[in-house]
Amino acid sequence: MSQRRQLSLNFFVYPGGHHEAAWRYKGTDISRLNDIAYYQDLAKRAEAATIDSLFFADGPVLADNIRYAARYRVEPITWLAAIGAVTSHIGLIATASTTYNEPYNLARLFASLDHLSGGRAGWNIVTTSQAAASQNFGLAEHPVHAERYERSREFVEVVTKLWDSWEDEAVVADQASGLFADTARIHPIEHVGKHFRVKGALNAPRTPQGRPVYVQAGSSEDGRSFAAHYAEAIFTAHQTLGSAQAFYADIKARASALGRRPEHIKVLPGLSPFIGSTEAEAKALEDEFNELIQPEYSLHQLLRMTGIDLSGYDLDGPFPRHLLDIDGTIGAASRFQLIVGILDRENPTIRQLINRLAGGRGHFVLAGTPERIADEIQQWFENGAADGFNIMPPWLTGGFDAFADEVVPLLRRRSLFRTEYRGRTLRDHYGLPRPDSRFAGDHLRASA
Amino acid sequence: MSQRRQLSLNFFVYPGGHHEAAWRYKGTDISRLNDIAYYQDLAKRAEAATIDSLFFADGPVLADNIRYAARYRVEPITWLAAIGAVTSHIGLIATASTTYNEPYNLARLFASLDHLSGGRAGWNIVTTSQAAASQNFGLAEHPVHAERYERSREFVEVVTKLWDSWEDEAVVADQASGLFADTARIHPIEHVGKHFRVKGALNAPRTPQGRPVYVQAGSSEDGRSFAAHYAEAIFTAHQTLGSAQAFYADIKARASALGRRPEHIKVLPGLSPFIGSTEAEAKALEDEFNELIQPEYSLHQLLRMTGIDLSGYDLDGPFPRHLLDIDGTIGAASRFQLIVGILDRENPTIRQLINRLAGGRGHFVLAGTPERIADEIQQWFENGAADGFNIMPPWLTGGFDAFADEVVPLLRRRSLFRTEYRGRTLRDHYGLPRPDSRFAGDHLRASA
Ligand SMILES: Cc1cc2nc3c(=O)[nH]c(=O)nc-3n(C[C@H](O)[C@H](O)[C@H](O)COP(=O)(O)O)c2cc1C
Ligand SMILES: Cc1cc2nc3c(=O)[nH]c(=O)nc-3n(C[C@H](O)[C@H](O)[C@H](O)COP(=O)(O)O)c2cc1C
Repeated sequence: MSQRRQLSLNFFVYPGGHHEAAWRYKGTDISRLNDIAYYQDLAKRAEAATIDSLFFADGPVLADNIRYAARYRVEPITWLAAIGAVTSHIGLIATASTTYNEPYNLARLFASLDHLSGGRAGWNIVTTSQAAASQNFGLAEHPVHAERYERSREFVEVVTKLWDSWEDEAVVADQASGLFADTARIHPIEHVGKHFRVKGALNAPRTPQGRPVYVQAGSSEDGRSFAAHYAEAIFTAHQTLGSAQAFYADIKARASALGRRPEHIKVLPGLSPFIGSTEAEAKALEDEFNELIQPEYSLHQLLRMTGIDLSGYDLDGPFPRHLLDIDGTIGAASRFQLIVGILDRENPTIRQLINRLAGGRGHFVLAGTPERIADEIQQWFENGAADGFNIMPPWLTGGFDAFADEVVPLLRRRSLFRTEYRGRTLRDHYGLPRPDSRFAGDHLRASA
Repeated sequence: MSQRRQLSLNFFVYPGGHHEAAWRYKGTDISRLNDIAYYQDLAKRAEAATIDSLFFADGPVLADNIRYAARYRVEPITWLAAIGAVTSHIGLIATASTTYNEPYNLARLFASLDHLSGGRAGWNIVTTSQAAASQNFGLAEHPVHAERYERSREFVEVVTKLWDSWEDEAVVADQASGLFADTARIHPIEHVGKHFRVKGALNAPRTPQGRPVYVQAGSSEDGRSFAAHYAEAIFTAHQTLGSAQAFYADIKARASALGRRPEHIKVLPGLSPFIGSTEAEAKALEDEFNELIQPEYSLHQLLRMTGIDLSGYDLDGPFPRHLLDIDGTIGAASRFQLIVGILDRENPTIRQLINRLAGGRGHFVLAGTPERIADEIQQWFENGAADGFNIMPPWLTGGFDAFADEVVPLLRRRSLFRTEYRGRTLRDHYGLPRPDSRFAGDHLRASA
């Protein structure tokens, strides 16, 4: 009997929770935001709920609105290494920038995460949308969007070669003969490109998954094209079923056109659920959060995401549409479009817009009963909008617990979500194949 | 009653063990060299023996003699993060290069390690001696020794400022008022130097230790000068008491001249102990390892360390002294001098020299009974040669167990080594103060 297609569910962990005022909520334990045990505990709960993976965002710069919210960063790779040590199955996805790293260093960090977790590493490949990051790396300015993606492609090519550079059988470790490694199966990569010159090989054996899972999270034209080539899971922000369906169809078609199997790219929109035992209770909870918003923060956030500066405008006045007449590709291009969509559909005041974005920075925020949330998930899943979701709890830990305790059981009852892990690696959870090394067999060809 | 001056003991972890043929020894479990649980288990044993810290070496390049020995790298920062998750006291020292990293990225990784371990991080600051590393980072050539140290100094200045950039009290987290961080206590560092331009601030709060412990491991003139300025612990290789004494006196004098307190720099020579219940048994054990040596490997190793190429020479012939007439500062300058010292004192054949170096790549190898080893440690400790040792077990895990089970109890009985940890941080174990942020109080001065 063939198994029903299964949902993939990630847990996107954000210090305190995703709602921008989460840290002010009475239910949030703000004293533990920098305490690894707090995250380890969340990871164990997520593992008990058979969630596919934990996901950490990242950026190598301090948010300039730190005054108003818990927007500092834990460094995700180290953090996930420490989380991996106390869990056994859940996937560990760290975001890292191709603009502000060296491929050799990053290849090592992720290979190590994959080794130490027994094959649970994923890399969310970003180009870094925050322009201010450039100032921490001696650059005169942040490279423009297209340039960032260009570098990103070459970066991924390089790390992929590095991860492939040891064939699976390279380590012989024959104590008697003294042959430790079969050097015919370790390949210098000799990469020479526009951005990088990397000789290789990597200085560690091939990892349990062959390569970490490639995750991507930019939805602009460049982002989609990149994703269709490289991504195995895509995080994306959509406010409506229609928008998600269009994105889903586009990505799968692009991947097919490149000769990839569409089911090997999981499309995972963000979803921030406010859960109540009635619709009214759920809405009241969302309102409670929105009352804690600080507009100074929200306007900063909007500026950072889109380049639109609303300071000085009346919060209860209309959104000044002439401000949209800028280059929306400076920051996160797809987020800019998403905001234009909200303006077109809802014509909100500035305050309404910032409330609208506060829950998930543009991701889908849904207040409802567990049934309503499970219904929506099922609808998107069964109607070509999603292969699963990136769950973004409004606050932690309660916002995650509510999802795990009340929504996950419904999804299981509907046979949409696993009741136990069937494998050990993140590739297993996502149903992705373990890639062969591109160099596999080369030594046979050479000696033939 | 004032406490007797205490030894510092680190455990330098090398996959399989330090003897170059360790992986071929019957007692070495080579199937686990890439298994984090193996290292976590070692860490727990070391913690049970109240060892000050674990130390991992590193280099961003594959050793070209991997054919003959287990000389690949585990990435130390991630590895120690996963080890930190299952231990509570032992220090976690990772090596990282100032030549092949960006200060902002490295500052984040170490800050994170310090946070997640509750203040147990140390950074072994190296400039990378392996020239081939340059080819993994797009450089035409490995920067020369003096240039590497020059960059290294600026690098340390930058990361120090980043670690200082959040004052201890910067996080306010007042849920009621909505003030998360007191931005007057978060300082952009605005560094502009020859090698780096870094605006800052760091994107995470000040760490438990204020700054990770600064460790250093180069003993050339440049290395010593660097260490006198910045190091809080120094790993160094010495073959004789006299050489260690001279180094010790020199370093402490240099530090004093710079206004530092000499007891705030721990000098920790490497020691690789072969332990037997009689001297004869210990020597026989060392011989057993030396019989497993593969000269091809050893000659490679010597070439890498010193630039001296002995291939083609008769192993049982004399060392060709005219080869010493090269620039010994290309690789590890102090290791070159150390080898010259052995040649001068012992006039060994090539085979005798490689056997001499096989145990610890130039570090002090001592075969003897537990008493003999404890005596030697005590002698160095009490005669101005060492503040402790970097213990380099010839093989793992047995080589460490023998030290922990047989030598540590003797040192404790002599009141030279703790029986329990007195603090939680690596600074506590080493008796080092927690530094203030250089910016502490700036906001008061500014508003005065
Ligand atoms: C769920 C999600 C998470 C993201 N996380 C990050 C992140 O952690 N760091 C980052 O620099 N960009 C992040 N992004 C943004 C993109 O990955 C991308 O680098 C940027 O937005 C430009 O993409 P685009 O212009 O193609 O949309 C995220 C996007 C999404 C949808
Ligand atoms: C115990 C010890 C460990 C060392 N570990 C490393 C290492 O892991 N990586 C590295 O590049 N250099 C390492 N070194 C070498 C130095 O730190 C330094 O980068 C290089 O040898 C040049 O130093 P020198 O010329 O000042 O001696 C180590 C040295 C010692 C004594």
